[in-house]
Amino acid sequence: MSVTTLNKLVIIGVGLIGGSFALALRQAGLVKHIVGVGRSPQNMQRALAQGVIDEIAKDIPTALQHVDLVFLAMPVGQTERIMMQIAPHLPINTLITDAGSTKQDVIAAARNHLSDENIKNFVPGHPIAGAEQSGVLAAKAELFRNKHLILTPLAETNETATQKITSLWQACGTEVSQMEADEHDRVLAATSHLPHILAFALMNHLHTQTESNPENLLRFAGSGFRDFTRIASSSPEMWRDICIANRLALITQIDAYQKELKNLQKILEKGDCEALEEAFSQARGIREDWLKGKN
Amino acid sequence: MSVTTLNKLVIIGVGLIGGSFALALRQAGLVKHIVGVGRSPQNMQRALAQGVIDEIAKDIPTALQHVDLVFLAMPVGQTERIMMQIAPHLPINTLITDAGSTKQDVIAAARNHLSDENIKNFVPGHPIAGAEQSGVLAAKAELFRNKHLILTPLAETNETATQKITSLWQACGTEVSQMEADEHDRVLAATSHLPHILAFALMNHLHTQTESNPENLLRFAGSGFRDFTRIASSSPEMWRDICIANRLALITQIDAYQKELKNLQKILEKGDCEALEEAFSQARGIREDWLKGKN
Repeated sequence: MSVTTLNKLVIIGVGLIGGSFALALRQAGLVKHIVGVGRSPQNMQRALAQGVIDEIAKDIPTALQHVDLVFLAMPVGQTERIMMQIAPHLPINTLITDAGSTKQDVIAAARNHLSDENIKNFVPGHPIAGAEQSGVLAAKAELFRNKHLILTPLAETNETATQKITSLWQACGTEVSQMEADEHDRVLAATSHLPHILAFALMNHLHTQTESNPENLLRFAGSGFRDFTRIASSSPEMWRDICIANRLALITQIDAYQKELKNLQKILEKGDCEALEEAFSQARGIREDWLKGKN
Repeated sequence: MSVTTLNKLVIIGVGLIGGSFALALRQAGLVKHIVGVGRSPQNMQRALAQGVIDEIAKDIPTALQHVDLVFLAMPVGQTERIMMQIAPHLPINTLITDAGSTKQDVIAAARNHLSDENIKNFVPGHPIAGAEQSGVLAAKAELFRNKHLILTPLAETNETATQKITSLWQACGTEVSQMEADEHDRVLAATSHLPHILAFALMNHLHTQTESNPENLLRFAGSGFRDFTRIASSSPEMWRDICIANRLALITQIDAYQKELKNLQKILEKGDCEALEEAFSQARGIREDWLKGKN
């Protein structure tokens, strides 16, 4: 199937993800005109100046006239409001997709607001790519290259719509998979949302420790610490929304993780060298297998 | 003070740290002859072939004849045994230092075995440098450049000995600080040993999750996950020894960390967006301040 060229693309939320999608599609020659919608006039001006978008939307109704694809790339906490705003103005054949890190809440918002006809062209998606930087200044055409993207089409999503969104992402160099939305949210709670919570918690824990200790604890933190805590520099607003949206799956993960941590603590309390080395070896083995599988 | 040139350096444990120290001192032109002591004949042959050492020790008594400096760079769990083996053969003026990630246990082992005269020339140290790779193949002269090294001299350590060890490390490009051994162990429990435990625990937690879930969870893990878990690829033996040696401080850290994690879990259970964003913002702010301080 040849890839559809988009005459008009509307991006809502022109940050790292929205901006990179624009740049990637432009580089692939698949889009003629890109309109950006965003909260921060300064950021939108920057997006325009950098050539990420061709036009700043005057208002949503005007922006959505004759639009081929709407790409939702704002923090997931705004999905409900944005769906409500765009729903009355969406042309019947417009494709809609998003980049939300959680999928069940985005789907619920779509069901609350989109018409039965529009929902057939809604293909929820999640590119597993990002960085601790946010904003359009960090956007780049290569962000999604060789990264995974998970689509979670609804039962009523048109197969053609899913195919079109798949081919657009593939043109950005992205590996596209499909999954049920609830499975997506469980998987991401474990491999992404939990690690973020653990990293945020570590920084705050060390802050408490520093308060009770005049010596600056962090002065001697090394490169292992830097990498471990990199995700704690992620956008607080974005991660608040993700963690709230997926909090049930995330709480289950935190519970199970705490059991694992307590297990290691008990091994330490017993001073059981053998069990400790076994636990560490298993952990390393799992990671090494994962790294091998990625190559 | 001009830096002493070492006529003979004995390195016990010629891995990443021992090998890099050898290469750095050689590059600085501060050592004439390097003798290596190690468990694995294969690794020692490799160290010799790569020019990291000049000679593989036949036995400890011969290796220690006329030695100027003994550098202990084997896993900390072997310190007691090695101190016992070297003690009877140490010349009276030989400097002794180590690279152990924990200091109180190394000092206890030194006090158990070294003579009163030798202990005056013992300067415990800990270079905050390393990588998840281990073994002499990973060694490089630049490993310690612009990294921290903490010395924890004993009350009876000669000031001259401390100065000599300081200047040797400075010649490797390392920033040298001094601290009490118990403070060192508390600080490192928080900023290094705890993150390692958290990363090992995450890998084992995900393994458990994968067993109850036919879908391979890790397939969609991204670059945030890769960096967060990098330290879980560290040597299980080395980290077993470190965590066992420093387990009291580490258990205290795990306890306090769990409180922080439970606090975040409670915020999630309440769905308190504001408190969650505040917690994430604080965490990010602390990390950003830390990064600024490093530059």
